[in-house]
This record gives sequence, C-alpha cells and structure tokens, in this order.
Amino acid sequence: MRYVIGIDIGGTNLVVGAVAEDGTRLISLQSDPTRPEEGPDAVLQRLADTVRRAIAEARQADPTAEFVGVGVGAPGPLDTREGIVFLTPNLGWVNLPLRQRLADLLGLATTLDNDANCAILGEWWRGAAQDTQQAIGFTIGTGIGGGIIVDGKLYHGASDCAGEFGHMTIDVGGRRCNCGNYGCLEAYASGPAIALRTAEAIESGAESSIRQYVDGDLSRITAQTVYLAAQDGDELALEVVRDTAKYLGAGVANLINVFNPEVVVICGGVTLAGDRLFLPLRQEVARRAFKPAVQACRIVPGMLTGTAGVYGAVASFLQLRGDRSSTPRSAPHA
Amino acid sequence: MRYVIGIDIGGTNLVVGAVAEDGTRLISLQSDPTRPEEGPDAVLQRLADTVRRAIAEARQADPTAEFVGVGVGAPGPLDTREGIVFLTPNLGWVNLPLRQRLADLLGLATTLDNDANCAILGEWWRGAAQDTQQAIGFTIGTGIGGGIIVDGKLYHGASDCAGEFGHMTIDVGGRRCNCGNYGCLEAYASGPAIALRTAEAIESGAESSIRQYVDGDLSRITAQTVYLAAQDGDELALEVVRDTAKYLGAGVANLINVFNPEVVVICGGVTLAGDRLFLPLRQEVARRAFKPAVQACRIVPGMLTGTAGVYGAVASFLQLRGDRSSTPRSAPHA
Repeated sequence: MRYVIGIDIGGTNLVVGAVAEDGTRLISLQSDPTRPEEGPDAVLQRLADTVRRAIAEARQADPTAEFVGVGVGAPGPLDTREGIVFLTPNLGWVNLPLRQRLADLLGLATTLDNDANCAILGEWWRGAAQDTQQAIGFTIGTGIGGGIIVDGKLYHGASDCAGEFGHMTIDVGGRRCNCGNYGCLEAYASGPAIALRTAEAIESGAESSIRQYVDGDLSRITAQTVYLAAQDGDELALEVVRDTAKYLGAGVANLINVFNPEVVVICGGVTLAGDRLFLPLRQEVARRAFKPAVQACRIVPGMLTGTAGVYGAVASFLQLRGDRSSTPRSAPHA
Repeated sequence: MRYVIGIDIGGTNLVVGAVAEDGTRLISLQSDPTRPEEGPDAVLQRLADTVRRAIAEARQADPTAEFVGVGVGAPGPLDTREGIVFLTPNLGWVNLPLRQRLADLLGLATTLDNDANCAILGEWWRGAAQDTQQAIGFTIGTGIGGGIIVDGKLYHGASDCAGEFGHMTIDVGGRRCNCGNYGCLEAYASGPAIALRTAEAIESGAESSIRQYVDGDLSRITAQTVYLAAQDGDELALEVVRDTAKYLGAGVANLINVFNPEVVVICGGVTLAGDRLFLPLRQEVARRAFKPAVQACRIVPGMLTGTAGVYGAVASFLQLRGDRSSTPRSAPHA
C-alpha cells in the first residue's frame, strides 16, 4: 500500500505520521520535542530522524508499505510555491527553504503548507468536515488561526495568507490584541484571552472558586482552568464561557455571511468546554448571520484531536504535489 | 459576432445591455423603470420588451450580431441552480422561477445570479479587478453587498448566499442594523448610515454647513450631501468621511485577513468621496490587516459605473451556462 508522511511542526512538538494515500489508515505516529533553541539545522536533523522512526514503525505494521512523499505543515507566513518559511517567531526561523531541505534529507518529494490550513484540511479529509465542498475551520489555542476549503481544495489566497481569522475585527474600538490592533477576535477568544478576561473579572471583585484552582495566583489561570471551573458550576467561569461563545459567535457568523459554508469546524482546547460553549455559540450565530446561510451550515467541534495536522499535511501533499513540491537533489545524506 | 444580453434588475431600474462574448464591446444599453408595484408578470413583460429593444439596437450597430443567451442579475436570496428568486422585499417577488420565465419569453438560454455578485464579476471581467485570480468587491449603496472571485470564478457558497459583507459584525455591541442585529458594517458605512451618523452629530450640536444643503431639514441629508459638503471643506462632513473610512477599513481588513485577495474593489456612490475616503481607508486597512496580505492587495474604486451589473450578468452567463441555465420550452410568445 502507498503511504504519505505527514509532519506537523509546532512550537512545542514535532508530530509525524504515516497515512495511507486513500486516508483510510494512520499506521504510525511519532512525536518529539521541537526544541527550537537548538537552531533550524538541529531541528531538521531531529525531524528527519523522527520521520525515519515513523517509516520503520510503518513498515512493521505494513511490510508492503511504499512511501510516495512528505507533506509538511509549519507555522507561517510561508510560500507554498517556493517552499520557504519566511518567518516563525516561535521557532526563530527566517527565510528557511524548509521544503527542499527536507526533500534532500529524506529523499522523498515534499510539499509545504501552513499549519492551521493543514489542521482544517485534515478535518475536511478525515474528520468533522468530511463530504463537504465548502468548509471553514478555526484553530483556537494560544492564537486563532483558520483555513478555508473551496470546492474541496484548500484555498491559499494571493500570497498564502488566507485564513487569518483571529485578526478579524469584531469590536472596532475594543481590546488591544498582541498584533498591535484593537478588537481582533483573538483578543477575546484565544486561550490566553479567555484566561485574561477571567483574571480581570476576579481582580475587579467577581466572586469565583477559580482562585482555589490556582492557589490564589491569578497569573496561573488558563483557559483550561476556566473550563474545569465551569464544569464544577462556578458562576464566573460559566459567564466567561458564555461571553466567549458570544465573541466567537460573531466571528463565526462573519464567516458564514461571507462564505456560506456547509460546515464550520472549531478545533483546539476551547472545544473542551463542550455544549456549554457550542449551544450559546450556535444561538449567537443564528442571531447574527443571514438565515439561509445559517440553515445551510453545521457548527461542530473538530474530531481529530492531535492528528488533524498530520492528516492535513498528507492531504495537502496530495493536493499540491503536482506543481508545488520539491524533489530530492541527490540521495539522502543518511 | 456573438453577443450575450446582460440584465441588471434593480428596485428602481431595469438595465439591459448587449455585450460581445469576448467582453470587448457593449453595443447597446437600455434602461426602463422597474415599477415593481405592477407585479412580476408586468415587470417581466416590460423587461422582455426592453431586451427586444436592446437586441434591435445591437443589430443596427452590428448587423452580423448573433445572440447566444441572457444573463440575469437579480436581488436575492435566490438559487442559481434552480433559477428561482426566493424573496425580494424591494420587488415583492416570492419563489419566482425567473430564469425559466425569461428563457421562455425571450427564446434564449438564460442564467440567474445575485446582483451584487454580478457587479463584482463585471468589475473582474472588464473593470477594476481585471487580470486577477482572487478578488473581493463591495457594493455600497442603500445596503452593503459583495462578491468573491476565487481562481477567476464567482464563488457562490453552499446555497448562493456568499458575499453578505454588509452584515459582518465589526462592533459586537454597536449600532443596531436594519437586519435586527448590532454592529454590522452596513449600520456604519451604507449610504443611509452615513447620512444618519451626520444627522445625529448635527442634532447633538456639531457645527456644520450641511443644514444649509437641506434647508434645515436633517431628514433630507443623504450620503451624497455629505460628500458635497466634504468637498466644500465642511469639518463635520470631513469627519464623517474619515469615520466611514475607519469602519469600512475594518470590514475591508477583515476580508483581506480572511481571503488574501489581489484586489478589493469598492463600488457605489461612496466612491464619489474619492481620495478623501480611499487614503484613510487604505491607512486603516494597513493598520488592521496582516502585512503580507496588505502588500499583496490593491484597494480601488470600481470602474464600470452603471454597467458593472450588465457586464457581470454576461460574465455570469458565460460561467454558469454549462450546468445552471434554462433553455426555452417553446418558441417565444411574441
């Protein structure tokens, strides 16, 4: 059987999987800390080692396994045509020809795409957005990213920047965002923004059991703390989750009004809040978006926790390999 | 030479043109009041007469003229697959099989598309967005509509509702919009919203020469009054235009962050404000949108004043005729 290697390069971990070309099987999954402080050469060498481990494990699972290529999802901005990562503050990479470097290291045709785009493409290929033609996805974590599927293909835009949903303005004179602007969705609904809104409310005197979850140290509050406290019935936590649904609902409604997709997939830790988030989120969207567009659209959590990026990197390889891939310039070094 | 008839159905006027299939010539342009109060049958008969006049005029301009079909742009929501207009409050039409009715009346293959979509497609085909693959356009008038070009084709979405840019939330707790929501772009930057913001400021005591333009009757202020007063240096009018640029800038920046287009075209009366609008608009976008996406994108006024809808209806016919057209069921009635 033919397999493609999918690589998800994150600030914390490198995740590598071997996925059947038809998407039906993931037969190996390897993970390694990224350790960006060691510099790109060391990270790429370690990544290549991780890929080799994944290939070895895959061969044990399926001795007939053939490997046709490698799809990589990396933080951007990047260039899918040239295969270059322009700048990744988290990793310290600048103008890195990641695609050719990996093709040479691994001896396999390689493609490069944006990590958030890959996560959504993974959900489209094998997860919550399967069997749709028009789909939108949010990745919500430290930041808010996204991806757009048009006619069953990842939409990249004019210069591979499409899908920056976190920096949609939803409150024109609102909260300052890390990007320097005011009123971005990310300033309200990212993990750190959820934690910050909670800490601010407690500092302003709101009653909450959350203090106990963090031994009184409000700087230790995370979005996850808030979901836990909401689960335990803490009023403030429930209110923060409802407010998050309201802000996120405005962002989702915007994209439904603009795109009229069949499905909006929400990926990331925020889905841990479950129906406490999704029920008011869907209500807010129904209030804000155009009725026929709302009726045409499901809003669902992602299904592929931990593997969406790998599946998506593989699907991206399958979509891009025709005209946006690097082939090895010689036999692999090792 | 082969021609396509383009029809732009507005609340006030029916505009009909004959455009060469290659887009190089518009050889006839006819207009007639819509008079929706006469009911759909009368409007369609009159529209058919207008088309016959356009065809006669076109034959005089080019005796070799052949007519291959009719593209229609109509207010929505509508269904481009079935050719049905679901509901047009301005016209009073409900579930009207407009496409088949016109095909039968005119004896020509006919397609149906949304009017705002057609205007943007016209600008893409023969106007300000020519020679691009990814483009976005706003139509700003009584309401704010829009259209999306992906890979050189009009993007319709899952149920022909894509492009409702006017109902993007840009101010989550902001002004009430006619749609019932709060903080929609349309509630700030449509023609009536611009007029309303001006009247409110004068009522709250702002100094302005605008009172004189409307003989003291603030209800007579229109967006055009504001542009005229701005031209004459009225401080309040200049402030309203700058604020409009700020709000519209947030909306345009949102779409640049989401779509990463090569061009954003702004169509409608608002372009009369010229550089007074476009310079601060571009500044606001540069502040709010992702830098590489801003660098990839021009923001320009529409070029095809009065004919964008006709050109676009023709271009829509050329894109849809393969699988979304009605053919006449018999010889034309007259």
